[in-house]
Amino acid sequence: MADPFVIVGGDAAGLSAASKFKREAPDREVVVLERGRWVSYAHCGMPYYVKGEVESLSDLLSLSPAEIVERGIDLRRGHEVTGVDPDAKTVRVRTDSERYDQAYGDLLVATGARAVDGPIDGADLEGAFTMHDMDAAAAVRAFLTPPAEIDPDAVDGEYVDRDRVETYATREPPEAVAVVGGGYVGVEMVEAFEAYDLDVHLLQRPDRLLPPFGETASERVIETLRERGVRVRLGTAVDEIVGDGRAEAVVAGDERIPVDLALIGIGIRPNTGPIEDAGVELGDSGAIAVDDYGRTNREHVYAAGDCAEMCHAVTGEPEWVPLGLTANRAGRAIGATVAGDPTPVGEIAGTAAVKAFETECARTGIVDRDRAREAGFDPVSETITASSRSGYYPGAAETAVTLVADRETERLLGGAIVGTDRAAIRIDTIATALEAGMTVADVERLDLAYAPPFSPVWDPVLVAAKVLNGSLDAP
Amino acid sequence: MADPFVIVGGDAAGLSAASKFKREAPDREVVVLERGRWVSYAHCGMPYYVKGEVESLSDLLSLSPAEIVERGIDLRRGHEVTGVDPDAKTVRVRTDSERYDQAYGDLLVATGARAVDGPIDGADLEGAFTMHDMDAAAAVRAFLTPPAEIDPDAVDGEYVDRDRVETYATREPPEAVAVVGGGYVGVEMVEAFEAYDLDVHLLQRPDRLLPPFGETASERVIETLRERGVRVRLGTAVDEIVGDGRAEAVVAGDERIPVDLALIGIGIRPNTGPIEDAGVELGDSGAIAVDDYGRTNREHVYAAGDCAEMCHAVTGEPEWVPLGLTANRAGRAIGATVAGDPTPVGEIAGTAAVKAFETECARTGIVDRDRAREAGFDPVSETITASSRSGYYPGAAETAVTLVADRETERLLGGAIVGTDRAAIRIDTIATALEAGMTVADVERLDLAYAPPFSPVWDPVLVAAKVLNGSLDAP
Repeated sequence: MADPFVIVGGDAAGLSAASKFKREAPDREVVVLERGRWVSYAHCGMPYYVKGEVESLSDLLSLSPAEIVERGIDLRRGHEVTGVDPDAKTVRVRTDSERYDQAYGDLLVATGARAVDGPIDGADLEGAFTMHDMDAAAAVRAFLTPPAEIDPDAVDGEYVDRDRVETYATREPPEAVAVVGGGYVGVEMVEAFEAYDLDVHLLQRPDRLLPPFGETASERVIETLRERGVRVRLGTAVDEIVGDGRAEAVVAGDERIPVDLALIGIGIRPNTGPIEDAGVELGDSGAIAVDDYGRTNREHVYAAGDCAEMCHAVTGEPEWVPLGLTANRAGRAIGATVAGDPTPVGEIAGTAAVKAFETECARTGIVDRDRAREAGFDPVSETITASSRSGYYPGAAETAVTLVADRETERLLGGAIVGTDRAAIRIDTIATALEAGMTVADVERLDLAYAPPFSPVWDPVLVAAKVLNGSLDAP
Repeated sequence: MADPFVIVGGDAAGLSAASKFKREAPDREVVVLERGRWVSYAHCGMPYYVKGEVESLSDLLSLSPAEIVERGIDLRRGHEVTGVDPDAKTVRVRTDSERYDQAYGDLLVATGARAVDGPIDGADLEGAFTMHDMDAAAAVRAFLTPPAEIDPDAVDGEYVDRDRVETYATREPPEAVAVVGGGYVGVEMVEAFEAYDLDVHLLQRPDRLLPPFGETASERVIETLRERGVRVRLGTAVDEIVGDGRAEAVVAGDERIPVDLALIGIGIRPNTGPIEDAGVELGDSGAIAVDDYGRTNREHVYAAGDCAEMCHAVTGEPEWVPLGLTANRAGRAIGATVAGDPTPVGEIAGTAAVKAFETECARTGIVDRDRAREAGFDPVSETITASSRSGYYPGAAETAVTLVADRETERLLGGAIVGTDRAAIRIDTIATALEAGMTVADVERLDLAYAPPFSPVWDPVLVAAKVLNGSLDAP
C-alpha cells in the first residue's frame, strides 16, 4: 500500500485538505499530525467567547475529533512534527511518550501562524496573554469571570489546559486591562473587555488603528472606542510589562499604566519551524513559497493556510495574507489535487471585515496608496460618505466608501467600507468587482439593488465609483 | 438661440436628465413638462409613508420644485403633453388654462408607467386605490388614521390633492382591507396595513407571491405574512369590487370578502400615450424601443425610465424592467449625451429587493428557468440554505440562495436570496458577478469577507456556487 497523505496541522487548511481528500479517495490513507489538543476550531471566534457572546469553547469547533475520525481521517493529536526529510519522504514526530518517523506519499504543511509577543519584556508574566490559541481564550475568560460565576461546563473539559484555567479561575477579576496592539485582535479584544466593565487601555505603536482598513476606519473606530470610555493611545510602543510574577503594569516610554491583565496582539508570523531544515523555500514574506497548486519547491510537499503565501488577485505576486477562507479553500484544493484531481488553490484579495461595537469595517485588495505604488500602480483614491438606505427610511446611517484605482488602466485596485448599518457585507461587491478585473467605470455601471429599506437609489459603492471616475477623468 | 431640450415627465429619469444636462451645458435651456403637481419623488417610499415609518410626504421628495428651478431648469408643473410631432420638432401641451405647441431641439420622453386596475369592476369606487401616485398614498394614510389623529403637517399642503385627502380624513378608519396582487406593491402594502392592526387579506392570482423572486421567496414571505395573521390566498383572481358608492367587499369567484378598503397592485404598464401618434416605435414589451444611447427610432427623440425598454445584461436583448436606479442612470446618460458627451444608458440586470416584515428577498438576472429557456439557455439551478454568520455568533440566521447557470457555458444567469439577516444586500455580489460574465466556478473562487459577526467562512453565495458547480459537473 502507498504511503499516506500526511498533513501537519489540524486546523482550517489541514482538515479541509484531509476531508476533501477522503471524500475523493475514500480508500486511501490520510494522517493528520496536530501537536496540540485542539483541532478544527474557529480562531476568529475567540474574542466573542471571551466577551461571553459565545457560551462554550466547544461552540467554536467546526468538527469534533470524533467527527474527524468518523470521516476516516487518522487524526493524531499531541503529535508534534519536529522536522521533514523530503528526500526520505518522512517527517519526524514527537509525542509525550515516543519519537518516530512517519513516511508520507504526499505532505501538506499546514502549521499556521504564531502570535508575536516580542520584543516586549515581561510577556511571559502571569496575567499577560497572546490570543492565539483556545487555552489562552479559556484562561482569559476564567480570569475575567468572578470565581463564584465560573461555569465549568462552559470550559470544554476534554481539550482545555485545565491547570492554566484553574490558575485564573480562582483569582479576583482584573480591574484594568491593557491591550497592546490595535489590529484585528486588539480591537476585538477591547470590545470583549469592555463587556466586563473594566478600565481598558488600547496602546498602538502605529499612528492608526487597523492599518489595512485605511484612515477612515481608524478614525471611526477610535471615535467608537472613546465613546465607550476606552483609553486609546496611538504612536505608543509598549516596551515592557512589569510585575512581581504577575503583570502589574505596562510601560510605554516614561509612562507606567497599572493593569491586572495585558493582552498582546501585535501580530502573527508564519509557523515554519518544522520545515526549517528541509530545503523548503520561503518567500520574501517569510511564509512558505508555493505555486498555483500549493506545491512547494520540494516534490510532494505542499503548504497551505497561515504558514504559506498565496497569489494576490490584484498584483499577481505571492503575498502572505493569513485569512480563514483562503486557508480552507487552499486546503480543500490540495486535498483534491493529492487525490488525483489537480485543483488550483486560487488567489487572495485580502478581503476582511472587523467590528468595534456597532462600527463595521471591511477592506479588499490594495487600499494603501504606498502599497499600490510599490506594486507598480499609479493609485488614485477617493473616499465618500453616503447613506446606507434611502435617507427617509428608518435606520439609514452614514457609510464611508474608499475606492482605489490605477490611473493609467482605470482598473479597480481595492476598497474599504466603514459604517454601522450593514456596512461590512457590502465589501463583497467590491471584492467581486476586483476579481473580475473591473474598471471604475464598470463599477459605476453596476445594477445594484435599490429598495428604501436596503439601499438608496445610488448605493454608496456606486457613489464612490462615480466620484473616483470623476477624479480619473480630471487632467 | 437653439430650441430647448424638452423633457416630458418630472420624475427619476426626467429630472436626472435635466440636472445632468444643466451641469454639462449651463447656458442651454431645458424645459421639464410634468402633468401633475408632484415631481422628483421616491415612488418606492410610499408604502413606508402609508405605514407611518416615514413621517411626511415631503420626506419622499428628492428635490423640491424650488430646488429644481434653482438648478436653472424650466420646470412646468400641470403641463400635460398630449402629442409629439417629430417632423415639426414640437410637443402639444395642455394646461388648465391654455394649449400651446412647444418647440424642442431634443426631446426626452420620460412619462413613466401607470398602475393597471383592470379588468376589475368597481376599481373606481371610493375606498379602492392603486398605489401609483403621491395623492393616493396621502388618501390611504388619511383613511387609515383616526380623524382625531390626523396631522395636517404630515400631508404636504403645497402639492397634495387636498379634496381627496379630506374625503378620507373625516371617515372612520377601515377595519378590513383587501390587497389585490402579491407583487412588490402588494406585499409592501400588506406590511403597511398590518401596522394599523387591521384584518388584512392578500389575494394573488398566480400560485406564488413575488414571482420574479423565485419559489423560496414566495414560501418564506407567505410564512412570514401568515405568522402576522395576514390571510393569504393564492390562485385567487378578484373579479370585482362591490359596494354602494364605496368599496364594501371584494369578490373572487364564489367568495365575497367584506372590506372597507381595497388596494389594487396587479401591475403597471408603460405610459406611452403622448407618443402614440408620433411614429415612435414600441418594443415587443409595449415600452418604447431605444438604442444604447436611449434614442428612439425618431431623430432627436429619446426615452428613458419606466416607459422605455433597456438592454438586459444577461440576454443582451431589449426588455422592459421598470426600476428606479436604471431610470436615474439612463436619464443622467441622456442628459450628458444631449449636452454633447455621448454616454450609453447602460444595461439592466433586474436587480431588486423587497421585504415583508423581517423577511428580505432579493433577485438579479434570470431566476426563472422557463424564462432562461426562452432566452436560449439550458438552465441549471440550485437552492441552498446556509448561515448568515458563523453559526455560533448571535444573530446568525438561515439564508437561502438560488443560483441559475447555463449548462453549456457554465455562465451565471441569475440568482435570488431570501433571509432575515442582511440577506437582501448580498444580492449585489451576485449582480456584480453577473455583469462581469462570471462562470459559476469564478463565483466559487471569490475571496469574500469572512468574520464571525458578518459571514461564515463559506458565505452563503459561495456555498450555492459550490453546490451548483457540483450539479454542472454531474453528467
